[in-house]
Amino acid sequence: MGPPIRVGVLGLGVVGGGVLAVLRRNAAVIHRRAGREIVVTRAAVRDAKRARDNCDGVEITGDALAVANAPEIDVVVELIGGQDLARAAVLQAIDHGKHIVTANKSLLALHGDEIFQRAHAAGVTVAFEAAVAGGIPVVKAIREGLAANHMQWLAGIINGTCNYILTAMESHGCEFAEALREAQRLGYAEAAPSLDVDGLDAAHKLAILARLAFDTPLPLAGVHTEGIRAITPADIHYARELGYRIKHLGIARRGDNGVELRVHPTLIPARQLLAHTDGVMNAVLAQADAAGATLYYGAGAGADATASAVIADLVDVARAMTANANTGAPPIPSADAPPMLPMAEVETAYYVRLAAVNRPGVLAAITRIFGDRGISIDTILQKGRGLIGDVVTIIMLTQITREGHMQAALKQLRELDAVQGEVLPIRLEQLA
Amino acid sequence: MGPPIRVGVLGLGVVGGGVLAVLRRNAAVIHRRAGREIVVTRAAVRDAKRARDNCDGVEITGDALAVANAPEIDVVVELIGGQDLARAAVLQAIDHGKHIVTANKSLLALHGDEIFQRAHAAGVTVAFEAAVAGGIPVVKAIREGLAANHMQWLAGIINGTCNYILTAMESHGCEFAEALREAQRLGYAEAAPSLDVDGLDAAHKLAILARLAFDTPLPLAGVHTEGIRAITPADIHYARELGYRIKHLGIARRGDNGVELRVHPTLIPARQLLAHTDGVMNAVLAQADAAGATLYYGAGAGADATASAVIADLVDVARAMTANANTGAPPIPSADAPPMLPMAEVETAYYVRLAAVNRPGVLAAITRIFGDRGISIDTILQKGRGLIGDVVTIIMLTQITREGHMQAALKQLRELDAVQGEVLPIRLEQLA
Repeated sequence: MGPPIRVGVLGLGVVGGGVLAVLRRNAAVIHRRAGREIVVTRAAVRDAKRARDNCDGVEITGDALAVANAPEIDVVVELIGGQDLARAAVLQAIDHGKHIVTANKSLLALHGDEIFQRAHAAGVTVAFEAAVAGGIPVVKAIREGLAANHMQWLAGIINGTCNYILTAMESHGCEFAEALREAQRLGYAEAAPSLDVDGLDAAHKLAILARLAFDTPLPLAGVHTEGIRAITPADIHYARELGYRIKHLGIARRGDNGVELRVHPTLIPARQLLAHTDGVMNAVLAQADAAGATLYYGAGAGADATASAVIADLVDVARAMTANANTGAPPIPSADAPPMLPMAEVETAYYVRLAAVNRPGVLAAITRIFGDRGISIDTILQKGRGLIGDVVTIIMLTQITREGHMQAALKQLRELDAVQGEVLPIRLEQLA
Repeated sequence: MGPPIRVGVLGLGVVGGGVLAVLRRNAAVIHRRAGREIVVTRAAVRDAKRARDNCDGVEITGDALAVANAPEIDVVVELIGGQDLARAAVLQAIDHGKHIVTANKSLLALHGDEIFQRAHAAGVTVAFEAAVAGGIPVVKAIREGLAANHMQWLAGIINGTCNYILTAMESHGCEFAEALREAQRLGYAEAAPSLDVDGLDAAHKLAILARLAFDTPLPLAGVHTEGIRAITPADIHYARELGYRIKHLGIARRGDNGVELRVHPTLIPARQLLAHTDGVMNAVLAQADAAGATLYYGAGAGADATASAVIADLVDVARAMTANANTGAPPIPSADAPPMLPMAEVETAYYVRLAAVNRPGVLAAITRIFGDRGISIDTILQKGRGLIGDVVTIIMLTQITREGHMQAALKQLRELDAVQGEVLPIRLEQLA
């Protein structure tokens, strides 16, 4: 355990606010995993007079460069966005020996080579998990998780706005313009939507992923970029009829003759997991020579999800700054580790299959056993011809109940005269 | 760049052979990403006389403990499996100050608390990406990528044998016993399959994931464990009819009253990505308070996939052992970085939509334009009533061709008298 890591945050908009909120909310687990405390001591905002939440103890200024150069700061988190000020602040911070965490994909796509080179010269970290696919740790997966691999290709849904619009066009059968208006109304698209719907944002992210996957210089100029304006609901419909769905993908492939980089709408087989990545969600599929195909799915934007990525980078920096950084066994369990819940107290829904003789009153007897224990039945299916005296299969789906209640009900069901053979419960989870 | 990392490998079975092969095949990229060379100098095998590939320069012995204690070794990779010898070798290696990389889930599930404690005392790393979900970097995602989060729950398909059997039962409508025989024939199930099909292997992995997610001591004893023997094709069919699929899941959830841990067959909504995780593939869905839902998908087993995880751990150890470990900017691009391929040389399949006047010879003229450039058409759909003189929509899917050829064909198509309005190409990728 070392002294606290002192962080300066540039920009306290939606993401900056999320970083402060999550650092505060999850301070104990973050401290345990980082091996030290992570403390934001300074922040720069455009309008220093606007009140902020979670800013107790943070010195607020309007001068980003002053934060970037502040002597006590260990790490600068750049969340200003855009080019000029962000670049100046990052380069100055690097020259002052500070580590950088940034969510700024356009800065990296345009100036990443310069920034990485300066970081190497200064011996500091530049971390940017939040720049691609928000809360999904896909930068870490490619840089570290797949470090043993030659990457063959990767394909990603890396712009949530485009994915939301295409999903809405498919669900509602509406035109691009209408789906865009809906996305704007919900805050998923900007008033000036071109950066997203014409593909440049995805091109920035693809360039960053390709830099990591293929060890090339940042290849933004080489990205062929198309947006989704030309797609009609009819195309989506025809694609579906042929067994495909249309997704806006960033594709990077290393072939025998070089690397191809392209961002465009793409028909992909409906059975692919990427084809099931809907709404504002992001996913990246990576094909590597040893690991094979791996896929990373999650929220591509949002204050908390992006904060999760920014703070993961801060934790990595903190670990690397800690003397005994290679103590890589999991942290010792906390003294207040939660207890294990006995199975009888677990709550879940159930599918129950049983066979019963079809005669008057049997179904009433079965359902009464559940009702007596407060177990609600959502659905009953009866399979079989249904003649009196036949054995029929009965399938029930229950609402969420306590395992102990269900086991008691099952025991009683098995004792019913009319119930024959096995009574099989299978648990049911919505996973949402 | 430091001196090479010297590695001792215990066990040269399928996974050990894969580790040697991938280390050799991808030596250059691994070296660049690790910042140093990773060299296997010793290996222990049960039968030291059996010849091995990729073993030039590796001292082979039958004595695992001798490798674990060898003075020049920095890292011991434990791939023996099982309990007694593996535990003894790992603890001795830790006590001799060596870092540990292991793929041994049962060792960790049963003896992880002891091993982690000894590692903390000795100040060494214990890394185990390969112990859960093979080539998917899910241990890294949970430990590092989601370090800012309180984990709420996770649910995973973490036993490929069970998933293969359930998928086969669903595709072929066959019974468990028949699907098991098929899995055994293909090498996806052991001759003694109980560890997999009765759920203990998944319980081991779930205990490890829960240890990381909830910072509890290793909770194997608290895992409620069921296998898949009771599931019938009829259950799979009924579940499908109700909008669900049956998957063998490991579920860990932190509720108000404690942590619940359970491994059992589960109905899950058919729209979930986990429901589309088929065959021997693995996937883990994690719900965390800041990142939200993220999912990690890939191969859960196999020599190369497991080697990818083992070597990723070795690269992490190498980085942590390197003096300037916090130089966390991506490595400088290699001098032999591949060139960018011009878009005209990219090869892909296409969907092409156009509108044309329906009259004799038009379809022939259109298809001739493709044929002249060597572009094969897989599918043609004609939409519209099809009366002579009507404008009809024509959809074509082509085989893979060169972008330059397609653009030339499209230009010529647009010049045809019979073609009216827009000709829209959308690229098509199988992603496999």
